[in-house]
Amino acid sequence: MSQKVTLVGGGLAGSLLAIFLAKKGFKVSIYEKRPDMRGSDYEGGRSINLALSERGLRALRKLGLDKEVLDIGIPMRGRMMHDLQGQLKYQPYGHDGQAIYSVSRGLLNIKLLQMADSMENIEMFFDHDCTGVNLEKAETSYTNKAGEPVEDKADWVIATDGAYSAVRKAFQTSGRFNYEQKYEEHGYKELEILANAEGDFAMNKNCLHIWPRKSFMMIALPNPDATFTCTVFMPFKGDPGFDDLKTRSEIEAFVTEQFPDAVPVMPNVLDDFEKNPVGSLVTIRTFPWLRGKTALLGDSAHAIVPFYGQGMNCCFEDCSDLDFCLGETDNNMMEALEMYQERRVKNANAIADLALKNFTEMRDWVGQPEFLARKAIEHDLSELYKDEYKAQYELVTFADVTYKEAWDRGFENDRLIDRIIEDKLESKIADRPFMLRLFKEYLS
Amino acid sequence: MSQKVTLVGGGLAGSLLAIFLAKKGFKVSIYEKRPDMRGSDYEGGRSINLALSERGLRALRKLGLDKEVLDIGIPMRGRMMHDLQGQLKYQPYGHDGQAIYSVSRGLLNIKLLQMADSMENIEMFFDHDCTGVNLEKAETSYTNKAGEPVEDKADWVIATDGAYSAVRKAFQTSGRFNYEQKYEEHGYKELEILANAEGDFAMNKNCLHIWPRKSFMMIALPNPDATFTCTVFMPFKGDPGFDDLKTRSEIEAFVTEQFPDAVPVMPNVLDDFEKNPVGSLVTIRTFPWLRGKTALLGDSAHAIVPFYGQGMNCCFEDCSDLDFCLGETDNNMMEALEMYQERRVKNANAIADLALKNFTEMRDWVGQPEFLARKAIEHDLSELYKDEYKAQYELVTFADVTYKEAWDRGFENDRLIDRIIEDKLESKIADRPFMLRLFKEYLS
Repeated sequence: MSQKVTLVGGGLAGSLLAIFLAKKGFKVSIYEKRPDMRGSDYEGGRSINLALSERGLRALRKLGLDKEVLDIGIPMRGRMMHDLQGQLKYQPYGHDGQAIYSVSRGLLNIKLLQMADSMENIEMFFDHDCTGVNLEKAETSYTNKAGEPVEDKADWVIATDGAYSAVRKAFQTSGRFNYEQKYEEHGYKELEILANAEGDFAMNKNCLHIWPRKSFMMIALPNPDATFTCTVFMPFKGDPGFDDLKTRSEIEAFVTEQFPDAVPVMPNVLDDFEKNPVGSLVTIRTFPWLRGKTALLGDSAHAIVPFYGQGMNCCFEDCSDLDFCLGETDNNMMEALEMYQERRVKNANAIADLALKNFTEMRDWVGQPEFLARKAIEHDLSELYKDEYKAQYELVTFADVTYKEAWDRGFENDRLIDRIIEDKLESKIADRPFMLRLFKEYLS
Repeated sequence: MSQKVTLVGGGLAGSLLAIFLAKKGFKVSIYEKRPDMRGSDYEGGRSINLALSERGLRALRKLGLDKEVLDIGIPMRGRMMHDLQGQLKYQPYGHDGQAIYSVSRGLLNIKLLQMADSMENIEMFFDHDCTGVNLEKAETSYTNKAGEPVEDKADWVIATDGAYSAVRKAFQTSGRFNYEQKYEEHGYKELEILANAEGDFAMNKNCLHIWPRKSFMMIALPNPDATFTCTVFMPFKGDPGFDDLKTRSEIEAFVTEQFPDAVPVMPNVLDDFEKNPVGSLVTIRTFPWLRGKTALLGDSAHAIVPFYGQGMNCCFEDCSDLDFCLGETDNNMMEALEMYQERRVKNANAIADLALKNFTEMRDWVGQPEFLARKAIEHDLSELYKDEYKAQYELVTFADVTYKEAWDRGFENDRLIDRIIEDKLESKIADRPFMLRLFKEYLS
């Protein structure tokens, strides 16, 4: 008889993992706290969007879901930086038209739930709020919509209930559980750029737009309805800071000065700024991820800040990595979870560090001449030496190496570029034999 | 009218802080989860002992309590290392008979409670288990011994309820609270060395005894009844490890081999080893320590591993530091708590790091020739240059500098000793003019 796995949380990680496990022959029960997204009057493309890149796509491809998901995505082939005068600077992300995809979180989640629902060995329960877990016995308790208690017994429980995981609470009180939650000084607030008078995108839709302002920034990702969802990242306390931007006139002065080219297509900006909440940015690290018959996966195990666009991609890679481990262990869930934990934790730590590092980069450096010069060298190296040189962004976003390897190789790249700048070797970048020798010296 | 401060927790930090606050004119209510230690049939000197050193004494001295406490303490003037053959090596901790004091946690706590109880503006409630806190309103809820709910309203709440603080739970869910709990691979188990046939101490009572064994160790501190309380620190999993030492014959082989000189005076060692639980070792770091009208102090804000003997001393210093801040701010509690937090958090982090570093030192290095050579140089420097050179241990244990300064100056010392070893300057240590020039180069 097939073993039953209960997934607490039916978000992106939970619904994708359910499909992986069902395909491996497990019976899967998903318990989700929120109502069924497919039933509620879902608002289409204007809600939060996410950047889907190669790691996430690779996981979807394993299940034959990549094409369907790409259909609802908008390719972004580079960053478009907006300065204080509204002037633009463009940097491609990769080469040969490599792109990341702006995807609606809601639409993607619905697609995955639909797929899961079509499989015989997956059952789903919505409006079920997890109230307790017995880690050793794989027993979980819930309160349903009617307020009634519901009990579930499985062979395994996997927490896919996100950064504020209810399952993780049981880990935290079970003794000798390493746990860290670390908040940024910055928070975030969402705003929107509307379509122009003709109903078209008001800016180039195939970019991720950035207004880098050193201590803060705004970014914008395109939606299918020709709008952009903007996010302002700014300290709570600071100059400027969310805590001190209170009156409409203060807000108006701020956005007009800082985002002069965007404000004309943000007619609701003052209302949105006043009304929309300020979210927090947290990095969560945990260990172990497995205790008794219960495991943590995705954001419940490792929440990261959004600055590398890798949160969802990392969770999807978690799922396909666990799928890989099940393959390696002949579907022995205990061995697979142990192997998964062993392989995965260093990568989760690496992407957490990468995301924090990229925040500084996006805010502080993107607009700086020295940074742009480094990026220009890196771009030339990537273009001329596609097989021999990979920028860290490329390794994280497009390549098939682990996050840990991307982290380590970033240091090698830095030292190589330091050398090029120090010894003024920019003119030699096209000299292939010379550069291959230099690579040998710096790159592993 | 005087403001009321509610202290959640009547352990060492809570009872000492109550006295400081009462002397400043605050009304103080202490709520303690456990029964009144003074009433229960307390077992005297044989329970857990702690190392009291200058920082703790300094706080007690401010209240005129130091002499009374020293009366129940046993001075330990150095470490006595026991090797596998039972051979001894002695290292003094300081000079001029400087000592740390082995003190019974229970007796000390009782003394502080007695003192607190004698003060008119302190009230104490035992058997009150904290069930909730309103951080902004300084309201706390408890369940008393009869199981009834009890509510308290104060002007300020200070958590002195230790590493597993109930008050801190409200901080953890209040948003943007940085929190880390990190466990060691090692656990600890308490054993005991009895008095010898004549009723005297079986070993030198004026030492802290250490059996350093690289991956694990045992220590022993003297008690007034001529026993020693021993603590074995060892990995849970390992070779040896607590998880694998299960049968009496395994335990017997282990202790006989590892602690040959101690086992003859440990007649209950097998029973104790089987019966006594294995405790965990955790480092907890938090920030902020102040939210609304509620603050964290002592282990609730910063739990550390016990390897520098500074847990209690750090908590006592917290109390006297808050007392100092109240003095500086004319008893304005909000300003004092903010000032205290600002001054104190870097010191709490420094002693956490120092304690972790000392664990490695005690286990791995204490028995190593290279380490002993460094200690010998350091000892000579301390003896010959009492005013100019202070070892890190001395700075932490005997001096009046912050933990952060002790941490920083440890690196300077290391570089100085590196130089002495590298350039073989041992013979020049007595050459005062030469050494003073060297100090100038290395020490700030």
